[in-house]
Amino acid sequence: MSQQTRALILQHWDLANARRWSEFGQLLHPDLFYEVPQTREYIESGAGYLEMFSTWPGEWKAEITQLVCEEAKAICIIDFTVGGETMTGISVFELDGRLISRVTDYWPEPYDPPPRVTPYLKRRPA
Amino acid sequence: MSQQTRALILQHWDLANARRWSEFGQLLHPDLFYEVPQTREYIESGAGYLEMFSTWPGEWKAEITQLVCEEAKAICIIDFTVGGETMTGISVFELDGRLISRVTDYWPEPYDPPPRVTPYLKRRPA
Repeated sequence: MSQQTRALILQHWDLANARRWSEFGQLLHPDLFYEVPQTREYIESGAGYLEMFSTWPGEWKAEITQLVCEEAKAICIIDFTVGGETMTGISVFELDGRLISRVTDYWPEPYDPPPRVTPYLKRRPA
Repeated sequence: MSQQTRALILQHWDLANARRWSEFGQLLHPDLFYEVPQTREYIESGAGYLEMFSTWPGEWKAEITQLVCEEAKAICIIDFTVGGETMTGISVFELDGRLISRVTDYWPEPYDPPPRVTPYLKRRPA
């Protein structure tokens, strides 16, 4: 069953990258709830989630770097590239049957670490 | 097999919260590679990973909020609470047999969103 989940998440990003919105919409539960805890933003419908993607500005492209799937849940990490810049996006997908019913997004940004206690923690040059 | 992975990740956080370092160390591959892409920090050994945890300052506690497991990989989201503040931590765990061989950590922080194109994206008050 986690293979079906994997196929669904791959399709989600393939169709989004291809701007095939009608097929993309068929993966979404009408009551899909979307949430960005970092900004406190949310969307309360599959139609709204689809609209967010289809109106997102720029020639963006999502490339999956990690994907772990269970029967009713997946967590996916993407490189989201737009205008020569790449951001890391982390999405928790929850399913209701064969439809995506909940998506929780995280966008971790680079930061300078505080002083560390342990000498084991090294840092690559920028 | 993903049930074994789940048990291992639950044990990782239970033992860390309990400061049971000797048992915690038994979950780690000697060559465990730890990485924080946001800061470019890394650790090149299980001993170093254990030392980072065992010397982490404060009365911290990790509580799992999401955990998705496959046979050789898991992604876990935690509330990491210390000194009355709670941060979100996202860890990708990779396994080599029954040992944790790679951990990639993300720490997404709150931010103010840019203006949005779609009217569907609403925002909760702070």
